Amino acid sequence: VFHVDWDLMTAEKGGFDHFMLKEIHEQPKAYRDTMRGRLSDDGRSVALSELNITPEQLRGINRVHIVACGTAMHAGLVGKTVIEQLARIPVETDVASEYRYRSPIITPDTLVIVVSQSGETADTLAALREAKRCGARVLAITNVVGSSVAREADDVIITLAGPEIAVASTKAYTSQLIAFYLFGLHLAQTRGTQDEAFVANVLAAMQALPEQVEKILAQAETIKGIAESISHHRSLFFIGRGIDYAVALEGSLKLKEISYIHSEAYAAGELKHGTLALIEEGVPVIALLTQEELYEKTISNIKETKARGAHVFGIYNEGHEAEVAKSVDRQFAIPRTLPLLTPALSVIPLQLLSYYASLALGHDVDKPRNLAKSVTVE
Amino acid sequence: VFHVDWDLMTAEKGGFDHFMLKEIHEQPKAYRDTMRGRLSDDGRSVALSELNITPEQLRGINRVHIVACGTAMHAGLVGKTVIEQLARIPVETDVASEYRYRSPIITPDTLVIVVSQSGETADTLAALREAKRCGARVLAITNVVGSSVAREADDVIITLAGPEIAVASTKAYTSQLIAFYLFGLHLAQTRGTQDEAFVANVLAAMQALPEQVEKILAQAETIKGIAESISHHRSLFFIGRGIDYAVALEGSLKLKEISYIHSEAYAAGELKHGTLALIEEGVPVIALLTQEELYEKTISNIKETKARGAHVFGIYNEGHEAEVAKSVDRQFAIPRTLPLLTPALSVIPLQLLSYYASLALGHDVDKPRNLAKSVTVE
Repeated sequence: VFHVDWDLMTAEKGGFDHFMLKEIHEQPKAYRDTMRGRLSDDGRSVALSELNITPEQLRGINRVHIVACGTAMHAGLVGKTVIEQLARIPVETDVASEYRYRSPIITPDTLVIVVSQSGETADTLAALREAKRCGARVLAITNVVGSSVAREADDVIITLAGPEIAVASTKAYTSQLIAFYLFGLHLAQTRGTQDEAFVANVLAAMQALPEQVEKILAQAETIKGIAESISHHRSLFFIGRGIDYAVALEGSLKLKEISYIHSEAYAAGELKHGTLALIEEGVPVIALLTQEELYEKTISNIKETKARGAHVFGIYNEGHEAEVAKSVDRQFAIPRTLPLLTPALSVIPLQLLSYYASLALGHDVDKPRNLAKSVTVE
Repeated sequence: VFHVDWDLMTAEKGGFDHFMLKEIHEQPKAYRDTMRGRLSDDGRSVALSELNITPEQLRGINRVHIVACGTAMHAGLVGKTVIEQLARIPVETDVASEYRYRSPIITPDTLVIVVSQSGETADTLAALREAKRCGARVLAITNVVGSSVAREADDVIITLAGPEIAVASTKAYTSQLIAFYLFGLHLAQTRGTQDEAFVANVLAAMQALPEQVEKILAQAETIKGIAESISHHRSLFFIGRGIDYAVALEGSLKLKEISYIHSEAYAAGELKHGTLALIEEGVPVIALLTQEELYEKTISNIKETKARGAHVFGIYNEGHEAEVAKSVDRQFAIPRTLPLLTPALSVIPLQLLSYYASLALGHDVDKPRNLAKSVTVE
């Protein structure tokens, strides 16, 4: 019996050593599947025909609350920036276990977006119910058709990541990002906050993402080497500004989940207000540098850590090799895309980093200690 | 020359070994001084006569942004709950280095509150200027009359904490809390969201805080023992829900700043979405349990950590000894106050915890490595 199961598991892993690695490699397909059928025929506008919410209702929204847990909440932090920048609606993001108990201020013009891979996350489901009770309209982003969250929400965007088996979420997270980009553009089109050419330009860049992810995956060996060297440390930091900070939070959580290393993400400008005290000789700092308008500011924060002995690994946009090399110890370039879309690329090396760190430490990558895939208790 | 300086420093420390300990003990006075002259003669309502903002303008506010760095930002997180609960205005809190670059959505009805002990924090000052450029009215909470932040804001509430010398802020933070309570009540009175009796009741409870702080300070030796035992760990966690989470963040930052231990604060319900993987035999968890309506939920999160071997130190309200004893390893009770006011008490044992941990480790308590008192660079 054991032998049969093993063969089945191997088959399901499609030649990969772990589900997590398989799922990391399925992301180009997940991006394509989540976009497919949601663009106009000419590919220049978004057509989210599954939504029941009318254009009038979309134009009437004046506040958005994004509520989720863990990795899905980190997708929501990117979603906040996307919606605020594309549609100029103020967005608050909350962890679900806090949201439901803090008497959030919900008006009839509030849209609540809940995000859950399984659609069964207990805290998120409870937050959805609380939001509906207060009169909000709820949009769910979930990977599971027919899940509780999908059934109870007013509108649903299904991510087409396919089944995710590894406890540490990868392709579900990035598919949630794609869903936020599509919804943000849909809002912007409907509310007229961005013109047609702008929307078409973003969609064209989105369609290039799958191939760009493949290009990153082809360089997995580079990340493996870095992962092995950081795996010996007990404490490390991820830093970034703006949308890079949202990705830093996700990179840090991924590493925690499967390597058990105490990593923590910081808004790069905030380090000097206390946490810089923890930076000493050899402490790894993983810095995201994909937002060119924040580039110099982040470099200056990197220098603050290097002056205290930090060993810095920089993730940046192709074309900045020479400048970045001066400020970091090791570096990895992601292909060029629009500033708003970089999370869909920059998170890939961070997923690989946590995978290889966990592997180097001999942990159970797919089933880390203490954690469940779908958290159906509060 | 050295001898003279030493005497001067000793004199200035008023018999305490460090400025930080002196400043921790000055909090009852700082609370009284920050309240004095800001209450009506009968003590039943708030009279913030220093504000230029008119009652009409106060009634017209429909969004509040609180912007600050480090410890002051943590006071702002308490401020968010205070303003949302007392005045039912939605509040967003941002770290200043992020706020100024994220194109925040500011309308003429947005009040921006900046918080800075020194009034010279570069990121906060830049955020203030950005907010004014976008047309917001700015209220500053600062400890220094005539500071840049005080001069450039439209309205100022001066905290009367007196000079703070230790890099790790204590009495400035708690005085900022008092300022937020006063301003929240002022808003509630003006907008009619709370009745007179409610306001009078909160003010009466606030006037009892200084004596309650003294009661906590008298038990410093209990905290010292706990601090010594946690000081041997390289990694630990603070947890709490709601307003306790805001205090957990401050307790964690305080410990980081002067003990260099990698501590991290989590919303208690969020732990199981990843970070629980880091909990193993003996890891210290410091749990705040001051919100009775969230009590059972937090206890259930504590049990999740204890099942993985965590050693839990619980901070709770007097009167719950028997229940708390069943779920934690060590405990400390704070005097009873209103749920919204607990941060002004629960942070005191956390300040003492970081002070004694730093002392046990032989660090320079008042001048931790890598940090400056007032961060006047970005």
